[in-house]
Amino acid sequence: MKIEIVENVLKYNKDQAEKNRKLFSGNNILVINILSSPGAGKTSLIIETIKKLGEKLRIGVIEGDISSTYDAEKIKKYIDDIVQINTGGSCHLNSTMIMQALEKLDTENLDVILIENVGNLICPVGFDLGEDFKVVLSSVNEGDDKPVKYPPVFIKSDLILLNKLDLISGSDFDLAFFEKKVNKLNPSAPIIRLSCKTGENLESWISWIIKNIKKK
Amino acid sequence: MKIEIVENVLKYNKDQAEKNRKLFSGNNILVINILSSPGAGKTSLIIETIKKLGEKLRIGVIEGDISSTYDAEKIKKYIDDIVQINTGGSCHLNSTMIMQALEKLDTENLDVILIENVGNLICPVGFDLGEDFKVVLSSVNEGDDKPVKYPPVFIKSDLILLNKLDLISGSDFDLAFFEKKVNKLNPSAPIIRLSCKTGENLESWISWIIKNIKKK
Repeated sequence: MKIEIVENVLKYNKDQAEKNRKLFSGNNILVINILSSPGAGKTSLIIETIKKLGEKLRIGVIEGDISSTYDAEKIKKYIDDIVQINTGGSCHLNSTMIMQALEKLDTENLDVILIENVGNLICPVGFDLGEDFKVVLSSVNEGDDKPVKYPPVFIKSDLILLNKLDLISGSDFDLAFFEKKVNKLNPSAPIIRLSCKTGENLESWISWIIKNIKKK
Repeated sequence: MKIEIVENVLKYNKDQAEKNRKLFSGNNILVINILSSPGAGKTSLIIETIKKLGEKLRIGVIEGDISSTYDAEKIKKYIDDIVQINTGGSCHLNSTMIMQALEKLDTENLDVILIENVGNLICPVGFDLGEDFKVVLSSVNEGDDKPVKYPPVFIKSDLILLNKLDLISGSDFDLAFFEKKVNKLNPSAPIIRLSCKTGENLESWISWIIKNIKKK
């Protein structure tokens, strides 16, 4: 009985995700679902991306939090196309929340939507939002063992970003170990090491986005 | 219908938590449920605690992970009384998992049980394990906005630890802001700033444990 209901929830989520996906592809919007632990740097990544691409591309942001508009306010300084979702305690975004957010965005004219999921390395993984890509943002100071301890998010992501590279020297983060473990879980996903703070290697992430932009 | 089932799950968890609590108090064991984001330093905190108190007190550890025995192996170098729970993907420990772990621990002779919950700042909060205290471990590099973005864990915890204090200089972490926000959410919970890496102020945490030890 319990399992049946869980399946219904996931099936319902999947159905709505397909509708979102149709809307995205119908409007040629590249949609990226960004997943990470709390404090890994999702908001910084979004702000740096807007700074680099905001003049060339029209970028929308969907900001997911259990409460507050704290991050959305930071991002709002850079763009107008932003919607806050407060999940009311729930640990992940779902496709219905995204559908509701889309009603408030000018989807016809957006090139990219960046979705900042709730800071949680576990629960958001199972919920398809209709995005083109899932991107996991790990950070140096979380330690090099995250792929070992939280495999699903690394398995299901299309791109692995390692942030806060500026903190690696003097730390005991073993880059070779981290990348080996990621590659083992997900051999086809590229890994980009970067620092949103210093800007180091941000251009690789920007190139990855540009490569995946859909022609309007 | 859905709500009723969720309530049943929580009620069932609560009932089992009460049984665990009875076992803990019957054996005069101090039980601490440690909550944090991935990579905030729960395992380091446990290891440093064992190093400081392991000769005076018999400490048991229950280690929660969605998979792997990676942290448990690290801790195993310091003590024998350790049990790994693999949640099989679930984002939090529950009281039944704890009950099963207790069967493998020498509860009659333990003074303290440290429970390392799954690395997740959201979901574990709602699941009583029967512990005496919930302790949240935040870390400097997650940023000073964690109380704003993840209020429930700060509201429900009995003690707030701020780890990785060695990284604060040169960072933009605003200690006054962090502590003000925590105090607003939870005026009665003490805040201890410390560094598991340098050992700075670990003695405050150790004193807090000693103060709460139950007489055998």
